[in-house]
Order: sequence, then C-alpha cells, then structure tokens
Amino acid sequence: MKLGYLGPEGTFSEEAGKTYDKIIPGKKELVAFATFHDILFAADKGKVNEAIVPIENSIEGTIGVVTDMLVKNVDLKICQELVIPVYHYLLAPKGVKLSDITDIISIPQVLDQCRDYIYKHLPHVTLHLAHSTSSAVQQVATSLDKGHFAAIGTKTAAELYGLKILAGKVNAKENKTRFVVLAKRDHARTGHDKTSIVFAIKRDRPGGLHDALGAFASRKINLTKIESRPSKKSLGDYYFFIDMYGHRTDKLIAAALKDLKAQAGFLKILGSYPRAK
Amino acid sequence: MKLGYLGPEGTFSEEAGKTYDKIIPGKKELVAFATFHDILFAADKGKVNEAIVPIENSIEGTIGVVTDMLVKNVDLKICQELVIPVYHYLLAPKGVKLSDITDIISIPQVLDQCRDYIYKHLPHVTLHLAHSTSSAVQQVATSLDKGHFAAIGTKTAAELYGLKILAGKVNAKENKTRFVVLAKRDHARTGHDKTSIVFAIKRDRPGGLHDALGAFASRKINLTKIESRPSKKSLGDYYFFIDMYGHRTDKLIAAALKDLKAQAGFLKILGSYPRAK
Repeated sequence: MKLGYLGPEGTFSEEAGKTYDKIIPGKKELVAFATFHDILFAADKGKVNEAIVPIENSIEGTIGVVTDMLVKNVDLKICQELVIPVYHYLLAPKGVKLSDITDIISIPQVLDQCRDYIYKHLPHVTLHLAHSTSSAVQQVATSLDKGHFAAIGTKTAAELYGLKILAGKVNAKENKTRFVVLAKRDHARTGHDKTSIVFAIKRDRPGGLHDALGAFASRKINLTKIESRPSKKSLGDYYFFIDMYGHRTDKLIAAALKDLKAQAGFLKILGSYPRAK
Repeated sequence: MKLGYLGPEGTFSEEAGKTYDKIIPGKKELVAFATFHDILFAADKGKVNEAIVPIENSIEGTIGVVTDMLVKNVDLKICQELVIPVYHYLLAPKGVKLSDITDIISIPQVLDQCRDYIYKHLPHVTLHLAHSTSSAVQQVATSLDKGHFAAIGTKTAAELYGLKILAGKVNAKENKTRFVVLAKRDHARTGHDKTSIVFAIKRDRPGGLHDALGAFASRKINLTKIESRPSKKSLGDYYFFIDMYGHRTDKLIAAALKDLKAQAGFLKILGSYPRAK
C-alpha cells in the first residue's frame, strides 16, 4: 500500500505518516512528494493508494491549499483523521551556542508559531524563509554561515542532518495539527464517527448561513469545526467547512444533509471516518 | 497627520495609503514600518495618528496577523475601509526575456495568487521567498543572478528599482484587497455604514453559532462577511469575524449586538465606518 506525504524526509508529514502506520498497522510504503498538489493529484489518479496531509492547525487554522483542492480539483474522501501535537526545535550545528545565533530560517507558518519564543529569547535575529522545515535544517547543516544560523524544524530532521537541539519545544503551547488520510473511498460506520462537508450558501439575502446551520441545530447535531474560506470568486463570498459528530449514513445526519442540499448553492460531502482518540 | 503603513517604499500598502489620501484629502505623512506588529503598536501608542493595513483578500482570506492583534493586543477601531483591485507584475532587469527566466522571487501569498500564470507560462521555474514584494524587486535589481531571476511585485516597485515589466497582471482575475484605516476612534454615522465585530461562542453545546447568528437573522441584518479564525487555544475553538451593513448606533444593530453580548463568551466591536464605494 503506497502512502503519499509531503517530503523530503524529516518533515512533520513524514512523522504523521509513521504515526498512522503505528495506529493502523499494515504494509505501507511512504512515498515523498514535493507539494500538496503533487500528493493529491497522485492519489486522485491512483498512483498512490492513500495520501496523508495536514488539514488544520490549532494556530494557523485551515491549510487552505489542501481544502481548496478537495473542493475543486480532486475526487478524494477523508477515511481517517489523526490529531498530532506539534513540537518545534531550534537547531544548529554542534558547537554553536544560543548566544551565537543571529539568523533563523524556517517556513513562515513555523516562524509565526514560534514568534513568542523568538521575541523573548532572540529579539534581534534576522528571519529567513525556506520552502519546508526540512530544507531549512538541511541548509543550516550544509550551506549557510555555520556559526550564526539556526533552523526551526523537527527532531527527525535534526538527526537526519546531524544538527543538535539548541532549544526544545519553542512553539506556542497548545499547538496541534490535524492530519487526514485521503483515499478514493471514506470509512464504514463504526458508531464513533465524524463527517466533514463543505458548502456555499446562496448570496445576497440576510440569514443564509443561519438557515444552513439550522439544519444541524434543529437536530442537535454537534459541530466540531466551522471554518470559512474565501471562494476566490469575490470578496465576501465563502465556502464553509463543517465537521460534525456522526456518520453520513446515520439517520439524523443524512436528514440534515438532505435539508442543507435543498438550500445550499453547493454541497460536497468530504467523507465519514472514525474520530481521532 | 501621520499614517503608518507596511514598508519599504513600493509595497502595495503604500499604494493603498496614497489612494486613501486621494479619497479623503488632508495632509498625511506616510510613515513606513517593517511589520504589522510595529504599525499597530505605533498606532495604539499614539506614535502615528492612523494606520492603514490590509485585513482581507479575495484569494487569501483574512490577514490573520492583523485580525489577531485587533482581538488581543491593541485598542484600535476601524474608521475607514478601502477595497483595492490587486495587480501583480512579473519584473526583471532590462534586456531579460521571459524565456530567460529560471527563478521567480516574491512573498508566499503572491506566488500563490499567481500560481495559474506560473504553471501555464513558466512551469519549470524555481520559486524563492522574500519578506515583502518590494524586497523581492530590490533583490532582483541588485543582488540576484541578473539573467535568470524575475520578481513578482508592484508597478511602483518596478519604477523605484528600475526593473521592466515582463508580464502584466499575472495574478488571478478577481483579486481584491480590503484595507482598513485604524485609529483610536471609529467613524460617526453617515447613513451608509458598515460595522465590524469579533466574537467567540460558549463551547460544547450544539447550535452555538446558529443561535449567535439568530441575533442578526431575526432582524434581517445583512452580514457582508463571516470568517472564522482559530482562537489559538485548542483545535475547534474559533473567533468569528462578522461585518454587517449599518452603524453600531442604529437601533436594530444596537439591539442585535446587545442580544449577542448576552450569549457570546466574548464580543468586541471593532468599529463602524462608511462603506467603501
């Protein structure tokens, strides 16, 4: 079974892939891709059986490039979810001290998540941007000025590229990433499920979203996530991503989705899957 | 009157500042800051009288760093809004042809907005990240390999740093940015106003957001924006940003806000201001 993930080796996505393999054992070959586009298209075209991608972070919110593709570009369903605590590490070559650091490199989202630590302990450093935390670690290990540069990345990447940990868990405390496994089919009912949908409301009348949410509120269905994303059509035009407890084949959920379909301008069921523990 | 904006010279924020000066004439001294944090803190502490910042883009959605600061870090009100069409340009030194380009540099958001153009016309280029479009343009003009690098940035920056336009309007078609002007006080009622609020709902019961929106739906108040942002406390915990037609001193709006305050865990009125034309 081939599982696509965002590489190169040492990324947080690779760690998620390994965690998934522990939770649901089975022979999995992890296949690295360079971008989320490449991963999702590979899964859509059957070049990998499944793809594991982050969909939501407690600091950053929705990973827009993934959700946008699920809406418009691919026909994939969510069949599993994993919630993984995120720890970022400040990494430098051996012999370099915290007080030597004048420059830090990582991806924008991670620098943002570690802002409080940087402001407090290294307020005068210059921040540099990389395409992945793994590439940031690699650059600090190989090409960048070795006495002064640190990367923020994973423990795995530090081991892979021979950097040492200058400071551990430098990110905001409550930092979790929710990964989903995507495949051609979602998961059968387990009795302890979640369902994800995306919809758009017809515009230009008051109360549209209120009415849409009424389909769930009137049935006391618990929504665990409500996020909006711009539709990219015009300002003020949104897609709404909603997660709820229950399986799409449950009577109440099925009735609510039927109600919503009747009034929404667009509705796509992204899948039902067992709740993460 | 001092107006803070995100510099350096040649940024899109500077263009917005100049547009604001045309719409509402008055002696304004534009003061450049390096980050949104610096701008908003300067306005909060009275070092500038007003600040102009982007708050929402039709492709990217909410500018999280700005909205997060409005919720938690500063006591500023929205007193004006401007909606400005965004045009990005592919820029290179004179003599360089489109077919010479192997590398493009810009900020992540702009590269994302121009993805379709890049995939179609320059599918094999390597993408590089800068901290501002202006700095990307400057780097292409001064330090990067001149035969092969192009920057994506504004027309103003091209003129400032002596680059020529290789391709115009390379971004997605419907691309608009909404800027807001922040000050210590919002705007008096004009009869043609908008009001912005942010609230959080009490958790762990079905229908919370539905009930909150009921305060507006029952009064037929038209919501022009509904966006969620993670509260950064835990997964599934959100702030909701809502814009509506009307002034906070209008009878119906005042009643709806009173209703909402009674049921929301948190409510902050970000200000009332004239609608952009």
